[in-house]
Amino acid sequence: MLVCYACGRRHGSGQRCDCGEPLWFGTDPDGVEWPDRDGVWAFADLLPVDPPRGGLAAAAGATPLVRAPGLDVDDARVHVKLEGTNPTGSFKDRGSAVGVAGAVAGVPGDGDPDAVGTVSHGNMAASMAAHAAGHDLDCVVLVPADISDSRLDRIASYGPRIVRVDGDYGRLYHDALALGPEAGVEFVNSDSPLRVAGQKTTALEVLRAFAAGDAGGGDGGAGRATAAAGPDAPDAVVVPVSSGGHASAAWKAVREATAAGLVDDPPRLYLVQTAACAPVAGAFERGDDAVTRLDREAVGETVAYSIANPDPPSGTRALAAARDTGGAALAVDDDAIRAARRRFARAGMRVEAASATTLAGLRRLRERGEVDAGEHVVLVATGVGYGGGGDAGPTDAETVTRADLAAALGVDDG
Amino acid sequence: MLVCYACGRRHGSGQRCDCGEPLWFGTDPDGVEWPDRDGVWAFADLLPVDPPRGGLAAAAGATPLVRAPGLDVDDARVHVKLEGTNPTGSFKDRGSAVGVAGAVAGVPGDGDPDAVGTVSHGNMAASMAAHAAGHDLDCVVLVPADISDSRLDRIASYGPRIVRVDGDYGRLYHDALALGPEAGVEFVNSDSPLRVAGQKTTALEVLRAFAAGDAGGGDGGAGRATAAAGPDAPDAVVVPVSSGGHASAAWKAVREATAAGLVDDPPRLYLVQTAACAPVAGAFERGDDAVTRLDREAVGETVAYSIANPDPPSGTRALAAARDTGGAALAVDDDAIRAARRRFARAGMRVEAASATTLAGLRRLRERGEVDAGEHVVLVATGVGYGGGGDAGPTDAETVTRADLAAALGVDDG
Repeated sequence: MLVCYACGRRHGSGQRCDCGEPLWFGTDPDGVEWPDRDGVWAFADLLPVDPPRGGLAAAAGATPLVRAPGLDVDDARVHVKLEGTNPTGSFKDRGSAVGVAGAVAGVPGDGDPDAVGTVSHGNMAASMAAHAAGHDLDCVVLVPADISDSRLDRIASYGPRIVRVDGDYGRLYHDALALGPEAGVEFVNSDSPLRVAGQKTTALEVLRAFAAGDAGGGDGGAGRATAAAGPDAPDAVVVPVSSGGHASAAWKAVREATAAGLVDDPPRLYLVQTAACAPVAGAFERGDDAVTRLDREAVGETVAYSIANPDPPSGTRALAAARDTGGAALAVDDDAIRAARRRFARAGMRVEAASATTLAGLRRLRERGEVDAGEHVVLVATGVGYGGGGDAGPTDAETVTRADLAAALGVDDG
Repeated sequence: MLVCYACGRRHGSGQRCDCGEPLWFGTDPDGVEWPDRDGVWAFADLLPVDPPRGGLAAAAGATPLVRAPGLDVDDARVHVKLEGTNPTGSFKDRGSAVGVAGAVAGVPGDGDPDAVGTVSHGNMAASMAAHAAGHDLDCVVLVPADISDSRLDRIASYGPRIVRVDGDYGRLYHDALALGPEAGVEFVNSDSPLRVAGQKTTALEVLRAFAAGDAGGGDGGAGRATAAAGPDAPDAVVVPVSSGGHASAAWKAVREATAAGLVDDPPRLYLVQTAACAPVAGAFERGDDAVTRLDREAVGETVAYSIANPDPPSGTRALAAARDTGGAALAVDDDAIRAARRRFARAGMRVEAASATTLAGLRRLRERGEVDAGEHVVLVATGVGYGGGGDAGPTDAETVTRADLAAALGVDDG
């Protein structure tokens, strides 16, 4: 059963409501309890499709939650959810795992597609292609005609059908949904109900870890989730926002956990965009009721290109998520993103520029007094990034001969 | 307490025995039981250092074990241990986590080093630099003077001191161990006792998953470890071999689990090298007692350059591991490695060339009748690889205009 968050209408299939807003799956959180471990399928009671029998789909999720004192911002305590440790290197694997499983099971009832598909030239494309391959299912990926060779190679390695489309890339999201049913392709785009269902497990894992004390003990014995002593729930969760699908999913997770009585004091959701393209942050700051599309010409260059979406299909839902939870949507510029990415790396964590927006955003929120000292803040580092290092800046490695090595290490060679 | 596997001598510190062979930590497996979850520190009873209080070190391990029918070789059933999902993208994080924790704790008693270090220009360098950064500890990385910019950038992003050394790179392993104590640097090289201790948790997790039925049920509910119905232990484990440190660690894990009574029928260990540089496989095939160093001039170019070590410091120990477990050491050529890498990707898993040797090796073992149909074989995919895609071969993506998209998707647009 699909539900519109905005008008409450129910649908048996489809991706968007008659009111224009995106759908998500209705669930029954009543009586649901925290599982004793992480992983997408550990939350099967809240998912619209049964767990697959093994395979790559079962490998999605269960990512580490790392308490990172080196990233604390003026005594706000930072935890990082390392989504780059998913099988294809990004959070997208959670949504792809559920998306492919749903397509195979004929959920939500769109029939029995011959293939899955997506519109992406980055993490989501690679992830969908990989998970389709894991199921031995055909996959169609729509990419812009001018895609770079390196991105094309990354996607192509998994063997999907790739269609380069010459024309307005932003419209392909809608083209795909319109053509998918007749083409026999289940398009699992950035905010499709199946993807949002899978994606919400990121926040469910964060909430579970805090509730279980896995984010509170720091004894290192509790799997990969560890942190300094903490509260039963984080005070805030910070996510990068592009389509708004992931932010919607985080909101859904918080709503479900609260409805199930598993969280007393739900976290505020903060959504961060790149200043070069910030339609959600703009709408939030203006107090608008809805997110409006930016002109493509108004979108600037940015290191966080992967979240520069001028027409976010779940933008208005993301706006609601920020407001409903007492959070905010905000934008950060490229200098701040680069500095944050470097800081992540200097704390031992390689993240892509889009993920670094979370730390840059937290800095602004601390400056503005919206996050307090002592609060526990989870930054969702969505992907590891496959292009280039980490904005390391100039490398000042010295060069010595082997004979001089002892001296270089401060050892008296005499 | 450090022990020599070959002569049994015990040492309070150091990395190599008087007999010339490498040391590892003695443990007391008696009464040890399987933990109820994965992760390096879940096996703390068998580690020489206490778990750190949270941080990046706690995020190492707990990688997925994926049953991959698409990789089965003539009915030998393949499971893949996806080590590329570690925080810095390779199995090295397990050894680095224990190595850094050991250095901080002053284990095995070499004193209180000012810094950690390693000799590497690939995964191990990035991993050590990251884990040192996670502990806010200085790190020294010795790299060859002719290191490529992309590799240098990856390492530099974590902020270690990088020393490019002009001279025989193969000798730096020994130089580092000789200079480390006086320089105040705990060098955690490829087969250092601390690294081997951390590294053995890969195989411990594999054995635990099979024993717990997490690799047997395939119900998807058991975290990330799932597989088709399987036995209590895998029949074989296949690992790439370079220094021999990882192979030694797998052997240590099997010995400990067997000594603890946790495994009745231990797996055979198969060690795979690239044909361009295969000193361990050569010694195995000749029936030699020890691995002898190859001339550097005898080492050919290979896609699996990261495991092309002509002078493996734990080579002879690896040889013993293969023989003692009833396995083998073998070599595969670049064509086979490339084909295997492509096959991994076509099953949804991106792995580096060195990791693809495992599948190429399994094909040879099936041809030779050393692995039987129906056997369960675990391939340890050591790293995700950051350079290039996956040997995708020529990309045959078609290009269409948006107007032609419907036709391209087989939808009648009339």
